[in-house]
Amino acid sequence: MKNFFSVADVDDLSALVKEALALKATPNAHRTLGQHKMLGLVFLNPSLRTRLSTQKAAMNLGMDVMVMNMDKDGWALETRDGVVMDGTTVEHIREAAAVMGTYCDILGLRSFPGLKDRKEDYSEDLFNKFSTYCKKPLISLESATRHPLQSLTDLITILENTTVASKPKVVLTWAPHVKALPQAVPNSFAEWMCKAQQQGLVDFTITHPEGYELDEHFTKGATIITNQQEALKNADFVYVKNWSSYQEYGKILITGRDWMPTPEKLKATNKAKIMHCLPVRRDLELASALLDGPDSLVIQEAGNRVWAAQVVLKRILSNL
Amino acid sequence: MKNFFSVADVDDLSALVKEALALKATPNAHRTLGQHKMLGLVFLNPSLRTRLSTQKAAMNLGMDVMVMNMDKDGWALETRDGVVMDGTTVEHIREAAAVMGTYCDILGLRSFPGLKDRKEDYSEDLFNKFSTYCKKPLISLESATRHPLQSLTDLITILENTTVASKPKVVLTWAPHVKALPQAVPNSFAEWMCKAQQQGLVDFTITHPEGYELDEHFTKGATIITNQQEALKNADFVYVKNWSSYQEYGKILITGRDWMPTPEKLKATNKAKIMHCLPVRRDLELASALLDGPDSLVIQEAGNRVWAAQVVLKRILSNL
Amino acid sequence: MKNFFSVADVDDLSALVKEALALKATPNAHRTLGQHKMLGLVFLNPSLRTRLSTQKAAMNLGMDVMVMNMDKDGWALETRDGVVMDGTTVEHIREAAAVMGTYCDILGLRSFPGLKDRKEDYSEDLFNKFSTYCKKPLISLESATRHPLQSLTDLITILENTTVASKPKVVLTWAPHVKALPQAVPNSFAEWMCKAQQQGLVDFTITHPEGYELDEHFTKGATIITNQQEALKNADFVYVKNWSSYQEYGKILITGRDWMPTPEKLKATNKAKIMHCLPVRRDLELASALLDGPDSLVIQEAGNRVWAAQVVLKRILSNL
Repeated sequence: MKNFFSVADVDDLSALVKEALALKATPNAHRTLGQHKMLGLVFLNPSLRTRLSTQKAAMNLGMDVMVMNMDKDGWALETRDGVVMDGTTVEHIREAAAVMGTYCDILGLRSFPGLKDRKEDYSEDLFNKFSTYCKKPLISLESATRHPLQSLTDLITILENTTVASKPKVVLTWAPHVKALPQAVPNSFAEWMCKAQQQGLVDFTITHPEGYELDEHFTKGATIITNQQEALKNADFVYVKNWSSYQEYGKILITGRDWMPTPEKLKATNKAKIMHCLPVRRDLELASALLDGPDSLVIQEAGNRVWAAQVVLKRILSNL
Repeated sequence: MKNFFSVADVDDLSALVKEALALKATPNAHRTLGQHKMLGLVFLNPSLRTRLSTQKAAMNLGMDVMVMNMDKDGWALETRDGVVMDGTTVEHIREAAAVMGTYCDILGLRSFPGLKDRKEDYSEDLFNKFSTYCKKPLISLESATRHPLQSLTDLITILENTTVASKPKVVLTWAPHVKALPQAVPNSFAEWMCKAQQQGLVDFTITHPEGYELDEHFTKGATIITNQQEALKNADFVYVKNWSSYQEYGKILITGRDWMPTPEKLKATNKAKIMHCLPVRRDLELASALLDGPDSLVIQEAGNRVWAAQVVLKRILSNL
Repeated sequence: MKNFFSVADVDDLSALVKEALALKATPNAHRTLGQHKMLGLVFLNPSLRTRLSTQKAAMNLGMDVMVMNMDKDGWALETRDGVVMDGTTVEHIREAAAVMGTYCDILGLRSFPGLKDRKEDYSEDLFNKFSTYCKKPLISLESATRHPLQSLTDLITILENTTVASKPKVVLTWAPHVKALPQAVPNSFAEWMCKAQQQGLVDFTITHPEGYELDEHFTKGATIITNQQEALKNADFVYVKNWSSYQEYGKILITGRDWMPTPEKLKATNKAKIMHCLPVRRDLELASALLDGPDSLVIQEAGNRVWAAQVVLKRILSNL
C-alpha cells in the first residue's frame, strides 16, 4: 500500500480485516517496524477519534508522531494555482506539503469540504495537491468526499460481530440533523460496502429520503430504497448517519425527527446491531435508547479505529 | 490507587510524600513500569504547569502520552442527560469519555466550574460522568471543586521544607484578585491540610474576609479566623490564594489590596515560607518583594508538580 | 554552546555546518545523547517549519519533547516589571519561565515583535527575561529581531550547494509584501553572512529600496546597494525576503511588484540559486516561475532546518 485515500487502495478486504484483528490481539508485536519513522498528522479541522486513534496506532508500531493543527498553529493555506498571493492566505499548499514531506516518512491529512461548490469539493483538489507535493505516502484522515479509516473500522466491526451463517444484511440509513454535514462518511461507507458485497462479505442496502441520493459513483451495486421501514426489514447491522443533499448541494431538505431510528422501528430488523461513526446527536440522529442499549456497537466501532489505522500504517511502512 | 480525585483517594499522606520524594531523587528508576501504557490528558480549559508536569511525569515512567485540547481541537461536549441534541453541543460526554477510555490506560481531565450554578458545580457532574463512562482510572487535573495534584505538591513542598522540630503552622490566606476565581485550589488545599493535621503532620489555620467562608465539607478541623494579622502569627508556611465567594456564589465581595500579603504583614510569622499555586497576580494577590524574596517557595512548589503526578501515576500503574 | 540566540553563539561557522551535514548523513547516530532529556518548545506565535523540524531534531537525538502553545493553551504573559497585575495578563514571565525551566533541560522560545515600539522590540526584553528566569539553555525559535535557526539552515544550504571554486556571491534582496513583516529574518541572515564573509566563506551583498535600511548592527561588512539589478549581477545565491522599514519602524513604504524577483531579472546572475525562508507569497514576493523552477532551493532549505536544529541541540546537550 502506497497511499490510503479510498477503497481502491485495497484489494482483498477480508485479508485486510483479518490483519487488523491480528493487530488487535497483539498490538505491540511490531514495535520495531516503525522505529525512527516519523508520522505527521495534519489537521485543517477538529478531530477526536481520528487524532487519538491514529497517534496510538503509530506509537504501537514504534513510530514517532508530530501533530500539526494547521488551522490554529500554522498558516492559512492557499490552494489555487496561478493567483497572486496578496490576500489573506499566507502559504501555498505546494510549499507547505513539500516541507512537511521532508520532515515525515508518512503523512495524514484531514480537510473537510466547504459544502458550497460541489465541483470543487468532489475534485478533491486540496487532497490531491497535498499528495502530489508532499511526495510521501499520504493517509486520508477524512477528505472532502471520503473517510476511509472510518469505513475500514466499520467493516472490521461488522465482520467481528457477524454471527449469522449467511452474509449479514447491512443497511445505511439517513438520519436527521440540524447542521449541514458532508457526504464523506456515507460516500465512503457505501463504496466500502459495495466492494464488500462484490467480495461476498455483506448484502448492502441504502435508505434515505428523496433528494438525498448520494453520488452514484459510490453506490454501484447497492440496493437503494426511500422507504426506511422496508429497508430495515431483516437488517443485521443498521448504520445511522446524516448527510446534506448531494443534488441540492450542501442543503438540508427536511427537518423533524421522522427518520430517526428508534427501538420501535428496529423491531423489523434481525435484532440488528446499531452503528454510528460519532459524534452523534442524541435523540435527533438516533434514539438514546438504542445508543445506550445492548445492541449498540458505537464504542467498539470507535475503539477499532486504532486497528484500522494500525493496519494501514503497517502496510505502508512495510512498503517504504 | 484507582482514581485520583480528592484526598479521600489517599490513606497515609506521609507515605505518599516519601514515595514522591524518592521519585524526585531518581526520576527514571521506573521507566519500564509504564511501557506501552497510554496516558490521555483531556483539557477543557487552559493549563501550563499541570499540562507539562503531568506529561513529564508520564514520560519518566515510560508511558506514551496523548494530549487532547477538547475545547479547541475536538467537539463541544453535552453533559446533560435526556436532552434532544439539536443545539450547539456536538458530542455527548457519554460517547466522548467512552471512546477516550478505549484508547487510553489512564486518563486525566481538567474542567473548571462555570461559577454560576453552585449546585451544578459542586455536584462535580461532568467529572463524575466522565469517570463513569470512560471506565478507566481517572486523574483530576483540576475539577470544578478540587485540584488534588496541586494539593499533593503543596504537601510535598511543606514537608520537604519543614525544619522545625514540632509540627509546622500552615496558614491559608485569602488574597485579592480582579477576576472571580474558583474555590477548587483552596477547597482542595484545605481538605488535604485538615487530613494532614489529623495525621499529625501540620497545624492548619484559614483566614479570609467575612463572606468568603469555604464549604464546611472541606475545612473540618481547621482553625478559621477573619483577622488576617492574628492568623499569620507564628506561621511557618503562608499559602496565598484568591477565591470567589462560596456563599454568594462566584461573586467578588471586596476590592482593594488590604488583604495582600506584604513583608510588613509577614513580620508576625516565624520567618514563614511563602507558597502560591501560580499563576499569581504580582502586587495584587501577593507583594513582589515576597514572591522574589528568599522565603518564596513558589518555583520549587511548581517543580514538585512532576513528583506529585509521577507518584499518582506510579500507584495507578502498579494497580492496573 | 550554552544558548543559541545569535551568530555570536558560534565561533567557527564552517565547522558547525560540517557537523550539521554529518547529522544529515546519519540522523540517528546520536540517539542516546538526549535520552531522558526534555526539550520544551514554547510558542507565542504560529509556526510550521520551526515547530516540526525542531521536534524531529530532538527525537533524532532521543530527547523527549513537550510543545506549549502559550498563546492558546496557557495564560497571557506579563513581561513588564513593577506593574500591579490587575489587568488582562494572568502570569508574569518570571514565574512562567522559571516553572518551564524546572520541567525541561533545554527550552526553545518563539516570540514575534509588536512592530510598534522599535526600542522595545530591539531590546529583546521578552527573550532576555525568559532566558534569565528559566535558568536553562535557551534556543531562539525566532525572536523579535533574529531567527538564527533559519540563518544556520541558510548557511548550510549555501555551502551544500556551492560548486564554484571561488567564494559564492550571496545577495539578499528585499521583496514586496502586503503585510508589515519583522526584520528578524533579514537581520539574522545579514549577521550570519557578514560573519561568513569574515571567515572567507561568501561574498555578501544586500539590496533594498531606499528607506528599508536594516539596523547597521547586523550589516557590518556587507555591500549595500539600492539598485537591485546591479546587485544581482553575477550572484550565485539570491535570498528573497520582505521586511518592513526599520527607519520608519514597522511601516510599509512602497507597494507594487517592482522589486519582485523574476526570471528576467535573474538573467544577470551566475545562474543563481533561489532561496526563501518560507512561507512565501507567490507572485508577490517571488515569481512562481522561479519558485517552481530548477534553481529553487526553498524546499531543500526548509528540509535543512532539521539539521540546523539538531546540531544546535547536540552541542548544547554535549555541554549540559
